[in-house]
Amino acid sequence: MQFASDNWSGAAPEIVDAVTREAARVGAAYGGSEIDRDVEARFADLFEHEVAVFLAATGSAANGLAMVAANKPGGVIFCHRDAHMIEGECGGVEYLTGGARLMGVEGAAGRIDVEALKQAIAALTPASEHSGQGMAVSLTQQTEAGTVYSLDAIREIASIAKANGLPLHMDGARFANALAQSNATPAEMTWKAGVDMLSFGATKNGCIAAEALVFFDPSQARDMPFLRKRAGQLFSKSRFVAAQLDAYLKDGLWLRLARHSNAMADRLRAGIARSAKAREAWPTTGNEVFVVVPKSDAKRMADAGAIFHEWARVEGVRLDAKETVLRLVTSFATSADEVDLFLEKLG
Amino acid sequence: MQFASDNWSGAAPEIVDAVTREAARVGAAYGGSEIDRDVEARFADLFEHEVAVFLAATGSAANGLAMVAANKPGGVIFCHRDAHMIEGECGGVEYLTGGARLMGVEGAAGRIDVEALKQAIAALTPASEHSGQGMAVSLTQQTEAGTVYSLDAIREIASIAKANGLPLHMDGARFANALAQSNATPAEMTWKAGVDMLSFGATKNGCIAAEALVFFDPSQARDMPFLRKRAGQLFSKSRFVAAQLDAYLKDGLWLRLARHSNAMADRLRAGIARSAKAREAWPTTGNEVFVVVPKSDAKRMADAGAIFHEWARVEGVRLDAKETVLRLVTSFATSADEVDLFLEKLG
Amino acid sequence: MQFASDNWSGAAPEIVDAVTREAARVGAAYGGSEIDRDVEARFADLFEHEVAVFLAATGSAANGLAMVAANKPGGVIFCHRDAHMIEGECGGVEYLTGGARLMGVEGAAGRIDVEALKQAIAALTPASEHSGQGMAVSLTQQTEAGTVYSLDAIREIASIAKANGLPLHMDGARFANALAQSNATPAEMTWKAGVDMLSFGATKNGCIAAEALVFFDPSQARDMPFLRKRAGQLFSKSRFVAAQLDAYLKDGLWLRLARHSNAMADRLRAGIARSAKAREAWPTTGNEVFVVVPKSDAKRMADAGAIFHEWARVEGVRLDAKETVLRLVTSFATSADEVDLFLEKLG
Amino acid sequence: MQFASDNWSGAAPEIVDAVTREAARVGAAYGGSEIDRDVEARFADLFEHEVAVFLAATGSAANGLAMVAANKPGGVIFCHRDAHMIEGECGGVEYLTGGARLMGVEGAAGRIDVEALKQAIAALTPASEHSGQGMAVSLTQQTEAGTVYSLDAIREIASIAKANGLPLHMDGARFANALAQSNATPAEMTWKAGVDMLSFGATKNGCIAAEALVFFDPSQARDMPFLRKRAGQLFSKSRFVAAQLDAYLKDGLWLRLARHSNAMADRLRAGIARSAKAREAWPTTGNEVFVVVPKSDAKRMADAGAIFHEWARVEGVRLDAKETVLRLVTSFATSADEVDLFLEKLG
Repeated sequence: MQFASDNWSGAAPEIVDAVTREAARVGAAYGGSEIDRDVEARFADLFEHEVAVFLAATGSAANGLAMVAANKPGGVIFCHRDAHMIEGECGGVEYLTGGARLMGVEGAAGRIDVEALKQAIAALTPASEHSGQGMAVSLTQQTEAGTVYSLDAIREIASIAKANGLPLHMDGARFANALAQSNATPAEMTWKAGVDMLSFGATKNGCIAAEALVFFDPSQARDMPFLRKRAGQLFSKSRFVAAQLDAYLKDGLWLRLARHSNAMADRLRAGIARSAKAREAWPTTGNEVFVVVPKSDAKRMADAGAIFHEWARVEGVRLDAKETVLRLVTSFATSADEVDLFLEKLG
Repeated sequence: MQFASDNWSGAAPEIVDAVTREAARVGAAYGGSEIDRDVEARFADLFEHEVAVFLAATGSAANGLAMVAANKPGGVIFCHRDAHMIEGECGGVEYLTGGARLMGVEGAAGRIDVEALKQAIAALTPASEHSGQGMAVSLTQQTEAGTVYSLDAIREIASIAKANGLPLHMDGARFANALAQSNATPAEMTWKAGVDMLSFGATKNGCIAAEALVFFDPSQARDMPFLRKRAGQLFSKSRFVAAQLDAYLKDGLWLRLARHSNAMADRLRAGIARSAKAREAWPTTGNEVFVVVPKSDAKRMADAGAIFHEWARVEGVRLDAKETVLRLVTSFATSADEVDLFLEKLG
Repeated sequence: MQFASDNWSGAAPEIVDAVTREAARVGAAYGGSEIDRDVEARFADLFEHEVAVFLAATGSAANGLAMVAANKPGGVIFCHRDAHMIEGECGGVEYLTGGARLMGVEGAAGRIDVEALKQAIAALTPASEHSGQGMAVSLTQQTEAGTVYSLDAIREIASIAKANGLPLHMDGARFANALAQSNATPAEMTWKAGVDMLSFGATKNGCIAAEALVFFDPSQARDMPFLRKRAGQLFSKSRFVAAQLDAYLKDGLWLRLARHSNAMADRLRAGIARSAKAREAWPTTGNEVFVVVPKSDAKRMADAGAIFHEWARVEGVRLDAKETVLRLVTSFATSADEVDLFLEKLG
Repeated sequence: MQFASDNWSGAAPEIVDAVTREAARVGAAYGGSEIDRDVEARFADLFEHEVAVFLAATGSAANGLAMVAANKPGGVIFCHRDAHMIEGECGGVEYLTGGARLMGVEGAAGRIDVEALKQAIAALTPASEHSGQGMAVSLTQQTEAGTVYSLDAIREIASIAKANGLPLHMDGARFANALAQSNATPAEMTWKAGVDMLSFGATKNGCIAAEALVFFDPSQARDMPFLRKRAGQLFSKSRFVAAQLDAYLKDGLWLRLARHSNAMADRLRAGIARSAKAREAWPTTGNEVFVVVPKSDAKRMADAGAIFHEWARVEGVRLDAKETVLRLVTSFATSADEVDLFLEKLG
């Protein structure tokens, strides 16, 4: 009953097979091999657009490098108050950019509120040498709160960003989960909606360690080879990361894995809806479910072997003093039995 | 006939097996799993000493984080003029430290000259707010030039470093190759000789991507969890890196791989000694051989399918205008047939 | 009718005299002259405590260097939401620290709310490699909103800071104005109340350019000579800054200048209280007065030659749509006639 | 007998007068006053070219900001091995740029050797993500060794820089001394010879603290207002720096001061030529004289009250074990009597 995080899961067999095949081969180091080039072509096909792709070790690194590419002196990044960049990267963006500032924007259920975004940008417009200047907008798809932005919502944020000369970055650590539940194409959810840079995460959804920073305008990535290298993010055996992504994107594996993960979350949600003990804290649609339970039940479930995190960012949720919120995350490796056992134990 | 670099090789079967096993498991993210702890214990056993171990994506990252740990304002690092930190990391140390300076010290065949080191340190002693202050000495074992430092040589450099209050770092991207050819224990080649921090590289010697920064005095690593995280170097599925290192260190696999690699280089050296076309540029003992050949033969070998790099840093080597220097690197995956074919073609 | 800022004023005659005297002398560069040492002794006398003093070009530099001295990886600084560090330094603290984060804490009229501070610190306690760690608390005395902290309030904030292992910094760009209106000694308002570092500003109060970063525990300043130098803040003719501060501190000049400035603000306040057109936005006691006026009167006064800034940070102030808030700042150079003319024109 | 440095001198009366006048005035802060604009116009007149001018506190700051403007990831700056940026700024350039690298280029008597420069640039061309990329060339006029570059020499270096896409910076801490001894106009010595950015120093030549970073192509300075502000280099009472420069440039004061300083050095040189005790270490033409004397005489002169620095960077100078090299610097404030007394005592 592992619902702590999708990054507690292992790796999909197809990913392991790709790594195993690669292990028996010889290939150029530092991104110069055939499969490194192949995977860039796969991304171009997937997104139906010219792209520049930079593999990196972690999602934090991909996010950080994206912000380095957008960096300006006195630069301010507008993102949701609970964004991973703010809450979960130990100041990595600030460090890698040499001091950009993250401005947390309000918004319910993990999504940036459009009016709050406009106001935050307006407060720095026109740019002033005293207070600084906007440098980027970043949104997370699927959000930290398990919700997704509609295409319309992305387009609206993009149009605000563009109107202010700011590039739009999407933190897609769980991009697969967001896309798998939509009718959109990868292109529609990104550059067609106005996204300039995407942190394309694959690790959480069945890879070992495979993250890619995708630029939809390669001319914005000219310095990136230098930036990635000096950040210690250029793998010598880069082709092992490329091989993971090659298998991940091949024949739609990535979406099959994400659909399974989402389906397991749906199964959880359905069970929660029937439970006398629990209720959803807010509606979610991807592979994360946030559940209000009595603290005593949280303890009971943990004692029974369920693994999960309690969630602190619960503004706007009605809780009584005896209740807490659990975050339950499913993955490609979650089984229906596991979900059912959890629901059974929960009661 | 791949002699371009040991990081062009794939991965050893035992390493792939470990990854495959890990893929089927569930485990805590961000270094919290059992195998993460096990691998730290393995390092402590290996080095017969308390250690703090930090896994990282690349050798450049391990080196950079080591220097961040040693960082001082106006700080200067003393290392060999041809050190990877200077020649091959795109200013990564400068970037990650926020502006430390690398001072290249002279020395034949990739080894720091002791007198030149003393002089360089003396020029910054006493520390001055105008010119800065020493912050670390870093040596590479095995060096970029394929040579190794004797234990006495390490001790001598360590004593100079200590006398000046400078921690000693060892860039061990090819530590296994250095150790495998010596009678020394890992402890003797490191902390017993005065090394404070070791970038322990495993990628070049049969892993997929596995680098560890080892502190022999854990109190010097107190900030490292924060530093690593914000540098984007904390893998969420850290246990896949741990699993590689666990298998690598188990039952001496790492030294078996390195011994094979070194033996293939010995076979190359023996063949070169018999060749009418080539001679060693300088004596080496690890898995790198530097060979003077006529440029026409270099071209001929490349046309015949041999892969190698020409080497530019050849101070002190007598070359005529028609000659060039090749760097030939062997790995765990190099076969005797491959070596013999190369020698046969070379003539 | 110059009420735009105290840094629009010139310099006091005693300060100019000191500079003139110094111009005719010869003295050691880079802080090595007699008057450089004298001024450090003056600070020790003034604060009745051993101190380490570092002159700097601007208040932003003094603040930034203070934060560099307190810096930690993943470090977070707690200060008022409207602090100069956040609002007026173009990300200077983030830049100079290589990426520390400023966490804006709520609080009425420019003063940190104690409960909000506790909550903000608690959210980062215990320190986590994911979210970072507290590194300092900074308060501004007199605040950006023209108010002052009582000694009790400083002590309370200091005790929270200490309980969490955080050094307390005071941004004293208008320290003189705060002190001049109190019965406290410089010692009582700083180290006796728990302040560890003080940005002691003199420029706004009659100097040309003279800022000092004062450490009450010199052992915390050991790296500061290097840090200041590499930040480009070590004046070669440092003695001209020292001479300004020497004259400034001599025979209480600094407090006489501040008392005059405060008295002019009191005169303004008294006039505002009698005015039919204006009212104070919130009560202030130093050399800044915030005044609600109809926008039409603001325009009228500007047309009449009054110089002032409109103020945007007016949370909690009841304004109707036709009103605006003016910030009126007095200085050592403000004359009673100037104030009276302003009040007369205001009506 | 003060020959330690020109920054040990005081300030010229005209400079003090300008400051005194400014002290009695009111004016906009942060560079917004009339004299701030006037001084920019003066620079445009002086250099017969559109310019963007940024005042800064110190020469180190001006140099550092110039390099920030030219900054590239993995960037390498080519300058003379003994340049102030390398030898005297405590890693300030590295710090402010977030990790650019200074590559010391050889050259006799403080001047970059053209062939060595070509070689150093060639070693980084084409740019590589492993070794980095060139970002600027910086030369010092007058050099640290008291010599000057001819216009032809500047043009040659500029043409190498341009051919490699590198902007050319001139560290002009002693630009006045260089210009005063030439027949060139300010324009000829800078942009007409290919200089893109000039650190225009006035402090050493009779100002209190007045440095200006001058861009001959203002489009390259677009980010500079933000960069300067966040580096803590935007003076609130900027007009006091502007006033110094206004007086300095008015009616050729700056060249009169420099000519005096150079004449005093000539008087020293003439005396040294007659001395039985001393000889010039190498020929110089500005306000610095480097003199070989027996160590016993150096001590004797110091005991007699002469102030000077011994000079360590004496490659290529023939010295016997009993000799040392003194650096003697004259300034606008040096008197003929002072020189004569020194020469008389020297014997």
